[in-house]
Amino acid sequence: MKSLNLQEILSEASRARDEYENYLRELVEFPSISNDPERKEDISRCASRAAELIRQFGGEASILHSQNGAPFVHGTFVSNEKYPTVSVYNHLDVIPASKETEPWKTEPFVFTKIKDQYFARGTTDDKGPALTALFSARLARQFEIPINIQFLWECEEEIGSPHFEEILRKIGRNARTNSVVVSDTMWLSRKKPTITAGLRGFIGVRFVLETAATDQHSGDVGGAARNPIGELMALITEIYDAHSGEVHIPGFYKDVIAPTKSELKDFVNSGFTAAWFKKTYALKSMRVNDSLEIMKRIWAKPTFEIHGVTGGYNGPGLKSIVPPSAEVKASFRLAPGQDPLKVAKLVRDFVRKKNPDVKVHIHPGSGAYLTQKTSPLADAAKKAVLFAFGKEPVFVREGGSIGSVISMQKILKCPVMFLGLSLPEHGYHAPNENFDWHQASRGMAAFLEYFNQLSK
Amino acid sequence: MKSLNLQEILSEASRARDEYENYLRELVEFPSISNDPERKEDISRCASRAAELIRQFGGEASILHSQNGAPFVHGTFVSNEKYPTVSVYNHLDVIPASKETEPWKTEPFVFTKIKDQYFARGTTDDKGPALTALFSARLARQFEIPINIQFLWECEEEIGSPHFEEILRKIGRNARTNSVVVSDTMWLSRKKPTITAGLRGFIGVRFVLETAATDQHSGDVGGAARNPIGELMALITEIYDAHSGEVHIPGFYKDVIAPTKSELKDFVNSGFTAAWFKKTYALKSMRVNDSLEIMKRIWAKPTFEIHGVTGGYNGPGLKSIVPPSAEVKASFRLAPGQDPLKVAKLVRDFVRKKNPDVKVHIHPGSGAYLTQKTSPLADAAKKAVLFAFGKEPVFVREGGSIGSVISMQKILKCPVMFLGLSLPEHGYHAPNENFDWHQASRGMAAFLEYFNQLSK
Repeated sequence: MKSLNLQEILSEASRARDEYENYLRELVEFPSISNDPERKEDISRCASRAAELIRQFGGEASILHSQNGAPFVHGTFVSNEKYPTVSVYNHLDVIPASKETEPWKTEPFVFTKIKDQYFARGTTDDKGPALTALFSARLARQFEIPINIQFLWECEEEIGSPHFEEILRKIGRNARTNSVVVSDTMWLSRKKPTITAGLRGFIGVRFVLETAATDQHSGDVGGAARNPIGELMALITEIYDAHSGEVHIPGFYKDVIAPTKSELKDFVNSGFTAAWFKKTYALKSMRVNDSLEIMKRIWAKPTFEIHGVTGGYNGPGLKSIVPPSAEVKASFRLAPGQDPLKVAKLVRDFVRKKNPDVKVHIHPGSGAYLTQKTSPLADAAKKAVLFAFGKEPVFVREGGSIGSVISMQKILKCPVMFLGLSLPEHGYHAPNENFDWHQASRGMAAFLEYFNQLSK
Repeated sequence: MKSLNLQEILSEASRARDEYENYLRELVEFPSISNDPERKEDISRCASRAAELIRQFGGEASILHSQNGAPFVHGTFVSNEKYPTVSVYNHLDVIPASKETEPWKTEPFVFTKIKDQYFARGTTDDKGPALTALFSARLARQFEIPINIQFLWECEEEIGSPHFEEILRKIGRNARTNSVVVSDTMWLSRKKPTITAGLRGFIGVRFVLETAATDQHSGDVGGAARNPIGELMALITEIYDAHSGEVHIPGFYKDVIAPTKSELKDFVNSGFTAAWFKKTYALKSMRVNDSLEIMKRIWAKPTFEIHGVTGGYNGPGLKSIVPPSAEVKASFRLAPGQDPLKVAKLVRDFVRKKNPDVKVHIHPGSGAYLTQKTSPLADAAKKAVLFAFGKEPVFVREGGSIGSVISMQKILKCPVMFLGLSLPEHGYHAPNENFDWHQASRGMAAFLEYFNQLSK
């Protein structure tokens, strides 16, 4: 194992800064929105450009296709077959963004540099971190780190990775790797480098009810006609208590594995406070105000969330219609122990009993994931972060979900570690999403040291 | 009183058909949507053109302005100060329409003639009937009917007539009239000419809850953050039982006056059937299936209806956010006896108790209205319909609301009668709204005979 010099790496990063910004601009300006069927072409173009970038950097790259899914970018930097291989997972797809309906200060699909910040959908989630790791792969060659690096760049992460396993199986033995590092997670704060110790699982659910064929005037039919929004509201209110957040579906909590005492101690020592959380996420008030209880709720407990309602009138003022149909968009985040398929069945059964006319569409889900906090990989990650950012990282969970993590553990049969670079102020899944040069350049150093640690 | 000849009137109507269609085209192509602040200019242009039309037809017209409201068209056809005066109420504003989000087969603000049908938003509600009455005023002069006719054309009916009383008071003694006839109601079916015996009252309500400043990722905050859509759903579910339709606000039903036995007999004899209702309004199923119970529910009982939910994600697929705010658009239709101000207070008090963070915006409302079924005016209306359409009309209530009716009764101190021309298949407040030449031409004859009856 080499002894790397941080200043030397940061100088190299600085020299490559224009290049980094230009490539990030190219990638984020593809509106690669995976939940929008009209963006298929943009996703393909984004994947092609990303594969080309890997080749420009000296790697090999191919684009793989699943039966019905988006393309997948498979990149390799093989120096010597005898070296160990580390795989870096990132995703190139993004969630929707609209300046019309959300308070974006810049165009969401136009790269805007303001001082050291880069604004656009996808900058921090997850194109910026993906590109950072790619720059590190080039540095690894330059510094002759004896390791092979493989890139797994997915384009369906934001829709639950429905074809990821199919793709991994397609790559087959070529995907052989000693470990995977996922760079799609967030720090507690800029001052608290964080290595993700676990993720929640996820099941997306759409509840759809159709009671008529077209809008009707509530003066004509109101009272006798069914109101699909009203009925879905009643159903949701049976599913959970919106005030406490408690889910009322029988058996829902049965398999939940609570965090250990040692883990709760890590939570308490993480520096997380209720006041910081409230301010960071611009919350006017919260369900609870106790810091530990908040950490448990966002990291370790399941949650049911309503994301939106379609159907009915959404314009200005009122329009006194009885809508013909409505859809509630929602999801469950799952705790360790909860089986997504089992929970999906509980949900379907519950709805069938409460309102059999409601159609339940369940989106591909994944279970929660817990990483090992004491292992050579965890040590390597800790050292890499300390080397690049000058601070010892904390190990706490994250409340989000990355479906592919479970798939990689299962199919690649190797441990999965996290090396995230995003910060809460980067506006992950929010308007004015951004990434910054500090996280990118130090991130390059962290990845390089991580590769270095794994090469021994 | 003259003895009019139906064939002669219909011949006159036929001669004027091109004119009618051209003017209707002009009026409906103004998107005079009163709940959309961006349509103010369109409403003004529509009102100006309508006033000009009255002048073209030989009447006098002026446009009146309220403090903050839309313009109002006041037209008069005074033949002799000694003659009685009848006022005709219509409105020139419309509800929104969108080909993007609703199944319109034609452009909603482009007049499209298909055989004898005229398609566009506003054709049946209420520009077509308004124009029909105007053509009758010209015929009344031609046939030398000894009556003065006044037109009251409002542009805020669809938002609850918030400035109508202010305007009526402004017209003052010039508005003096012996009676008012409102042409903004619907028949039971083409085969069942219907004179409206009563209307429900209306209060529009928007429930708004803000719990944060921007969208947040449900992986980051889900479980600890409040979910404003979820909380509004819980509130709505406390307000009413969406399955039965029963409102749970204490005291809500206290003042409701039930229909009399004689009126219920009229309901039963009206020819209304559950099967017809279900088919006409394209309902897949209903809250109840008994015909009389449906009639009671849509005409005589109050109802709470949810019209839409804004806030959260409305696009394709899912977007796993916790939204910062949400708004539920809803309304109450009121039964005779219920005081809109009193109900508004009950609603506010109930919400304050259940979720004090929810802001309740109540839109100007009106009480229910019952007309007299045995009176010279009712007889005139009956005779006019029989004369023009060859069928005895039935007297049943309508479940809609026309706020201005209460105002006219109060300020003009005269009885209000109904002479509606719309049919259920005209798609009142629905996509593919239309009017037809049969109702327009026979409607001209009905208005003329009504004027004739009142001239005696």
